[in-house]
Amino acid sequence: MHVAFIGFGLIGGSIARAVRTSRTSPAWTVAAWSPSGKGSTQALADGAIDRAATTPTDALADADLVVLAAPPTACLAALDDLAGSWRAALPPGAVITDVASTKEAILQRADRAGLRFVGGHPMAGLESTGYAASRADLFVDRPWVVIPGRDTTDDDVERVESLVMACRGRVVRLDAADHDRAVAGISHLPLIVAAALVEAVTGNEAGNARADWPTAARLAASGWRDMTRLARGDPAMGAGIAVTNSAAIADRLRDLAVVLEGWRVDLQRTGGPDESTVEERLRAAKTRLQDPGQP
Amino acid sequence: MHVAFIGFGLIGGSIARAVRTSRTSPAWTVAAWSPSGKGSTQALADGAIDRAATTPTDALADADLVVLAAPPTACLAALDDLAGSWRAALPPGAVITDVASTKEAILQRADRAGLRFVGGHPMAGLESTGYAASRADLFVDRPWVVIPGRDTTDDDVERVESLVMACRGRVVRLDAADHDRAVAGISHLPLIVAAALVEAVTGNEAGNARADWPTAARLAASGWRDMTRLARGDPAMGAGIAVTNSAAIADRLRDLAVVLEGWRVDLQRTGGPDESTVEERLRAAKTRLQDPGQP
Repeated sequence: MHVAFIGFGLIGGSIARAVRTSRTSPAWTVAAWSPSGKGSTQALADGAIDRAATTPTDALADADLVVLAAPPTACLAALDDLAGSWRAALPPGAVITDVASTKEAILQRADRAGLRFVGGHPMAGLESTGYAASRADLFVDRPWVVIPGRDTTDDDVERVESLVMACRGRVVRLDAADHDRAVAGISHLPLIVAAALVEAVTGNEAGNARADWPTAARLAASGWRDMTRLARGDPAMGAGIAVTNSAAIADRLRDLAVVLEGWRVDLQRTGGPDESTVEERLRAAKTRLQDPGQP
Repeated sequence: MHVAFIGFGLIGGSIARAVRTSRTSPAWTVAAWSPSGKGSTQALADGAIDRAATTPTDALADADLVVLAAPPTACLAALDDLAGSWRAALPPGAVITDVASTKEAILQRADRAGLRFVGGHPMAGLESTGYAASRADLFVDRPWVVIPGRDTTDDDVERVESLVMACRGRVVRLDAADHDRAVAGISHLPLIVAAALVEAVTGNEAGNARADWPTAARLAASGWRDMTRLARGDPAMGAGIAVTNSAAIADRLRDLAVVLEGWRVDLQRTGGPDESTVEERLRAAKTRLQDPGQP
């Protein structure tokens, strides 16, 4: 099998490294193209790929599997190109997949274009970005959501799942809307909340730094660091995720607003907050976290 | 100098270990009492303290410095006892300090009781609790807020600061209200937000688990883990913090609600969210985090 990457950063690079070292993909070959060409040039030098393509259409030659390893909005653009100016270069038997964090908008675009597309989302990442940070074990035992497009066969899906297997990920079959709602909760809402926390604690309504922020910043410890780590990520990647899953994230924001208002009411209760009520809320949240199955 | 601990878990144990090993406190002696007696018994066996007291008043004997190493509401109760039934056991020359995460309520209580009290808050912690998790280097280079009470002299404050020095912490002098506002932002709001995120994503309005939570839980990765870590802490400790700093936290919750509503509006913009607006917001938050001094 010959795999072609369009886009080649942390995720693409890690997949290529896994394919190269996995026992389930011994004879696979890999080509890669990325806008900067930096990652693919380095990967060729490392022996992680067989060919560093100079153009996207060059990368597509002889591909059995095309992996769009790019942020969500770049994936949408690549699907348009695959259905348009790149169409002639796309081998008729090639199956296309992606690794973007949102799925419904991307599946819809691929289906409308009549592409043989199977959406993918490996649930793994690192704070660092780019091919230089890639590692062959990034996906080991991690869920990898697989969502067949409208115009795909079982064989097409199996081809994508063989890629997941080579990366030692765990295939999770989901509907695109269910996927997007789920990741809105456990991944995209946390990103927006991290950014909102920074905005609210450090800034005033005019968008300038609050006068008391430098004092607070001096005292910040591990709790603040953890709760703002997601806000230290790539803003372009975050924006692409937010705009391609905006409805599901907005739903989650409404849910969160109701809960936070409940907290405010509990803390501003007439006569002072009730310690046991607050402790019970915190305990219930902790229990829910520790056992996702409980009611 | 003889130091007496009332309460002896992670923080008390770590202070005792630091005092024992620091070059600035070679001749200091340490006694400790805690409700369970577990930590102090083990610390005595470890050689980290000189005496495991069986009662609070026993612990106070000959103390030059009394450290209330307990959660905020337990500190309030201990101050009442020090001004009441423990008063006779408190050496007249003893200075009292604490390590609780909120300061204004505690300072007010101590001042009203006429105690020689200097509030303290070492900005360090671990997820684990109890003496067993304590470590001598917990406070090295960490800020340690010191807030003199009304009835204290410069010598009293220096005595507390010599404890900070023995732990190799960095003394930060702050007003109690400024401290509480600052930690409401960088520590207490994040705790409530972590719990609220769990409630909103995992539960429905009736407090039961959402039907889609088990699916989302399977996909949860490092972002979810980081953003909910604070909700895995001790609920009793969290409740004590929340109720003794409720007004400042409620102010922060109101600020956050405004910001989150702004995000919802941006994401539900007519015609779809504007990717560059979203990217700019994320980039500004990231910049603010990286440079607390910028406007």
